[in-house]
Amino acid sequence: MKSCFFACLCLALPLAARADEGMWLFNDPPRALLRDRYHFDPSDAWLDHLRLASVRFNPGGSGSFVSADGLLISNHHVGADALQKLSTSEKNYVRDGFYARTPAQEIKCLDLELNVLESIEDVTARVNAAVAKDADPAAAFAARRGIIADIEKQSQEQTGLRADVVTLWQGGAYHLYRYKRYTDVRLVFAPEQQAAFYGGDPDNFEFPRYDLDICLFRAYEDGQPARPSEWLRFSPEGPRDGDLVFVSGNPGRTSRLLTVAELKDLRDQSLPFRLLMLRDREVLLEAWSARGGENARRAKEAVFGVKNSRKALDGRLAGLLSPGLMAGKEAAETQFKARLAGKPEWAEALAAYDRIAGAAKIMGDQSVKYNLIEGAAAFNCDSFGLARALLRASQERPKPNGRRLREYSDSGRASLELALFSAKPIYPDLECLTLADSLAFLAGELGADDPLTRRILAGKSPRERALELIDGTAVRDAAFRRKLYDGGAAAVDAARDPMIELARLIDPDARALRAVVEEQTEVRNQAHAAIARARNALEGSSGYPDATFTLRLAFGAVKGYEENGRPVPAFTTLDGLYARAAKMHNRPPFDLTPLWTSRKSKVNPGTPLNFVSADDIIGGNSGSPVVNRAGEFVGIIFDGNLQSLPWDYAYDDTEGRAISVDSAAILEALNTVFRAAPLARELTTGALAPQR
Amino acid sequence: MKSCFFACLCLALPLAARADEGMWLFNDPPRALLRDRYHFDPSDAWLDHLRLASVRFNPGGSGSFVSADGLLISNHHVGADALQKLSTSEKNYVRDGFYARTPAQEIKCLDLELNVLESIEDVTARVNAAVAKDADPAAAFAARRGIIADIEKQSQEQTGLRADVVTLWQGGAYHLYRYKRYTDVRLVFAPEQQAAFYGGDPDNFEFPRYDLDICLFRAYEDGQPARPSEWLRFSPEGPRDGDLVFVSGNPGRTSRLLTVAELKDLRDQSLPFRLLMLRDREVLLEAWSARGGENARRAKEAVFGVKNSRKALDGRLAGLLSPGLMAGKEAAETQFKARLAGKPEWAEALAAYDRIAGAAKIMGDQSVKYNLIEGAAAFNCDSFGLARALLRASQERPKPNGRRLREYSDSGRASLELALFSAKPIYPDLECLTLADSLAFLAGELGADDPLTRRILAGKSPRERALELIDGTAVRDAAFRRKLYDGGAAAVDAARDPMIELARLIDPDARALRAVVEEQTEVRNQAHAAIARARNALEGSSGYPDATFTLRLAFGAVKGYEENGRPVPAFTTLDGLYARAAKMHNRPPFDLTPLWTSRKSKVNPGTPLNFVSADDIIGGNSGSPVVNRAGEFVGIIFDGNLQSLPWDYAYDDTEGRAISVDSAAILEALNTVFRAAPLARELTTGALAPQR
Repeated sequence: MKSCFFACLCLALPLAARADEGMWLFNDPPRALLRDRYHFDPSDAWLDHLRLASVRFNPGGSGSFVSADGLLISNHHVGADALQKLSTSEKNYVRDGFYARTPAQEIKCLDLELNVLESIEDVTARVNAAVAKDADPAAAFAARRGIIADIEKQSQEQTGLRADVVTLWQGGAYHLYRYKRYTDVRLVFAPEQQAAFYGGDPDNFEFPRYDLDICLFRAYEDGQPARPSEWLRFSPEGPRDGDLVFVSGNPGRTSRLLTVAELKDLRDQSLPFRLLMLRDREVLLEAWSARGGENARRAKEAVFGVKNSRKALDGRLAGLLSPGLMAGKEAAETQFKARLAGKPEWAEALAAYDRIAGAAKIMGDQSVKYNLIEGAAAFNCDSFGLARALLRASQERPKPNGRRLREYSDSGRASLELALFSAKPIYPDLECLTLADSLAFLAGELGADDPLTRRILAGKSPRERALELIDGTAVRDAAFRRKLYDGGAAAVDAARDPMIELARLIDPDARALRAVVEEQTEVRNQAHAAIARARNALEGSSGYPDATFTLRLAFGAVKGYEENGRPVPAFTTLDGLYARAAKMHNRPPFDLTPLWTSRKSKVNPGTPLNFVSADDIIGGNSGSPVVNRAGEFVGIIFDGNLQSLPWDYAYDDTEGRAISVDSAAILEALNTVFRAAPLARELTTGALAPQR
Repeated sequence: MKSCFFACLCLALPLAARADEGMWLFNDPPRALLRDRYHFDPSDAWLDHLRLASVRFNPGGSGSFVSADGLLISNHHVGADALQKLSTSEKNYVRDGFYARTPAQEIKCLDLELNVLESIEDVTARVNAAVAKDADPAAAFAARRGIIADIEKQSQEQTGLRADVVTLWQGGAYHLYRYKRYTDVRLVFAPEQQAAFYGGDPDNFEFPRYDLDICLFRAYEDGQPARPSEWLRFSPEGPRDGDLVFVSGNPGRTSRLLTVAELKDLRDQSLPFRLLMLRDREVLLEAWSARGGENARRAKEAVFGVKNSRKALDGRLAGLLSPGLMAGKEAAETQFKARLAGKPEWAEALAAYDRIAGAAKIMGDQSVKYNLIEGAAAFNCDSFGLARALLRASQERPKPNGRRLREYSDSGRASLELALFSAKPIYPDLECLTLADSLAFLAGELGADDPLTRRILAGKSPRERALELIDGTAVRDAAFRRKLYDGGAAAVDAARDPMIELARLIDPDARALRAVVEEQTEVRNQAHAAIARARNALEGSSGYPDATFTLRLAFGAVKGYEENGRPVPAFTTLDGLYARAAKMHNRPPFDLTPLWTSRKSKVNPGTPLNFVSADDIIGGNSGSPVVNRAGEFVGIIFDGNLQSLPWDYAYDDTEGRAISVDSAAILEALNTVFRAAPLARELTTGALAPQR
């Protein structure tokens, strides 16, 4: 990373959108900016078309419809969760890929939910009206939770659509998002992982890149290919250098509007702690994977996730440790506070900074324990998650909808049940490994003589306790889960399942930790809302809220950059892939599979493979369609470069870039490498060919 | 690890030597035990022969002379440090191995020092007499340091031998060890690393094993092969199942006599912290290595060291988290304290437990900072170590010998200079990587706004600061180091070298942290000495002190064990190696090199390859000779199994075993695989063949 990376940010205000910055709300698009910078004026129809063709992958990720017959495209690394769940020791779809030549060959995913954003409604006034002015934070939180559950349930009953009230601007606004859900999703095509993730962890977040990071699914309704209301026409050419391109996807979370105190907490506490947890898991899973091929297969998705998060967090931490970034944040905050000072109407906004710092301190003091117990980092295995869900569902469902823990509200029920009754494979050996390690981690963090640790370990070593729990629990059996879920508290209590009993044992502590976070989040959100009101009044309301894993629109030019004085062109090509493999002696993770080696003479070497653009993205945008002014699909986001990782805190396009697979490479690979011409044809024609 | 692993230990007293337990002093061998258990009575000559044929590798490890012409054998993983330093991007001796067919082809190691223990003298009375009864801990520490430096210097001047006063029994005794030093050590033979470390990290600390973990050197004196006073005759057959075998080597450190408070500090603080540092480095180095072959070569030794330590510490922590082990320690301590209670003569010993807990608390409270600053974990690169050595040598050498930091005393001067002026390669890219990471680790631990962190980072990001320091320092140039070392403080000050200036910047803090540790160590050691006196008086003096990286004698039977109800035989064979490779589809790290594959039909398949015995060993014993009753070399220690890792705290031979390479496999591999018959002949005849 270049040394002066953030020097130019010093005076940037958090909200002053610069260059191609912004993860814009579809109901508040950056019309003026687009007009001024690019002479582009998107019509409502253009926006609706793009929004309705966009797909959210509920487990995390984005995608888009690319044919009238429900074909949709995302990244391989987004689809890998589904691929892994469909794989067995005999059939490894993650490693080997898959292609259904006919719809009949498509394989139904086990628990994949897709969402299409049908409408947005501002319900801020309704939410705030439900909270008494003088309510203490706990009461305010409860009132807010209650009204949000009511709004969601009412909407769902009226429309049949999934309803989520989304907190925007850290509490400054509440919008109701209504989604069409697809839960019959079938796998159509995946390349071999070595092509999708060429270069592996070493090349992750790097550019130049040579990855065909795609995966195609088809949504079904009533047993037939879905007919989405909108879908994107596929451009066979991809974009050109300098083109304005748009990204429509679901950035997971950004922290750009946080106060300096909150950023320092991230820098000095949260991120270092999360990194040490991730490294613990990375070392554990890598060592276990190295012991044999089947181990490696079982842990594959987890290993990828952990390495990907670790590298991303390393980059974010590097951003926060870059004095330029923090100095810029401090200068902006000081400057804004100076505008508030001495003005009675902004006294609340000015005081809000201290309230936020106070809330951050309270949450920070218990954050390790919160992560371990309520966050379940001490019980790192699927079985615990299922056990806790069964226990809590039995406790929460008898309560009024508005008083439940959020994840057990009526509006979330269908999604909860999809996950809870998934037939995904769970491997006891891997469960035991990760549970034992996380119990040891707990002992290391709290101390082995800590009363809670002692109760959890029950007089056994972490490994003995993990063995006993994983051996003894029946929650891996989906029929057992169904029985307990339907049977409610009586059935759950009667089961005496050791993992459920562990969840019960820690539940009072877990809920107490959670209550503190909920209360302090309420304090913090109301403080942020006060600051947001002041900012809107003093600086105008143009801008975009921090990312919330909801649909956003980004825009930016396809353009290269300069790194250490050397130009990095915007595009790589297919022959660049072959050249890189040769230069790296074809050694993993830079090897080509026999398929790609055998097709070398056939592929058009100049086909653009990956490209970078200045679009403002972050994790969760993976799989987002990249469209041109005509709204055509010209590529698909799959990564950002290292220099984009600090975008979590501040956008900067000096070197930071989003990285996409070019639509031209997708067609070339399907036709020439994978001999999947019918699928390529569906992309170019937008319809499932009758003869296929 | 079996669940009841430590159950049987509950009532074991720390000092009650059980079964084949013990790392015995050569000047206090377990004669009675050997007589009672094995009807074996080693003569003084037998002991002297074994001691004088044993070799300590000063950087960490053991070995032995195996010919009259100075040939000596150790492990590949002990020799790898020397191999790595001799390797370049063109010639990779670590990976590819080496064989000098004639002495002329042998390659001189860059900075390897070997020690042979010539004599031991008890100087306890002299050391203690120099410390005033009423001295406070700081004064007592200074007085003790002074007298130890005097004793060492005097001995060195009288004998010319390296002189080390060793603290035994945690301060209960002080023995003067005199060593013959060899610093002209030449590489004779190394197998390919894939044969030496077959199975890699996954098989490390496991059994059954199939490793040819050997490396042969020759010591020289005055340019000629050394003629050691003693050397071991090589047994072509190795041991038989059930044989009594002895191990003579240098176990690095054990913690068996620590109090429960100290063990809990290890369990809850030290080990978890060291593990998180190790995992940080492992992830960093693995990710960097994956980026290219030359990266991997440069980081190879560091990667091995980190993974090896991480797996060892994981096993040790598992032992401490095993309730049986800790319960046994607590019961023994409670029982012993009961014997002391109410007896005025043992009041000091009884009070010692609280003094130890107090000292441990003080050291524990500053241990993170101590590790980072004085331990230099925040400045993880060779350049910093060299810079600090230059700075401190310039400060310490003008002081009287007895007042210096221990590593700058006159008696240690030759060893210090050997390390300081080594021509070993130092790679700026790797230095920058590890320094940047460790500076970020510092910021994560202390906080980026901590005043010390701010001074160290000097307004830059960790990466920028590391780049600046590594780019700017000249300490990688051995001639520069020589100039500064010879020029003293004036030359060091005038150099204005940025890395030396960093060492200077933190030196007041570093020395202050060290002073606290020295003072509390004195408190702790005197408390332990009081307990040791009581123990000797009440239970007799038979026993052995904790390991101190000095020569010890262990004994034990060659025998298999039972794991999860299945028998694990004591021996593996060469055909087992081929079978394992086939079963693991020859995938790394279970692959055979082309050499081994091509020789498959030639090797005698039944040749014993590795074996386990109950000898009491620990890290530092690597490379120790295993000898039979006749004092013949029958094998070489290279590992302990997972179940032996908690031996740091308590020996248990239910499943714990030492693992050795069989001497028969060494001969078979040299003759048949490596076609190194002249070297095999030197082993069997004990002399360098004239025709060679």
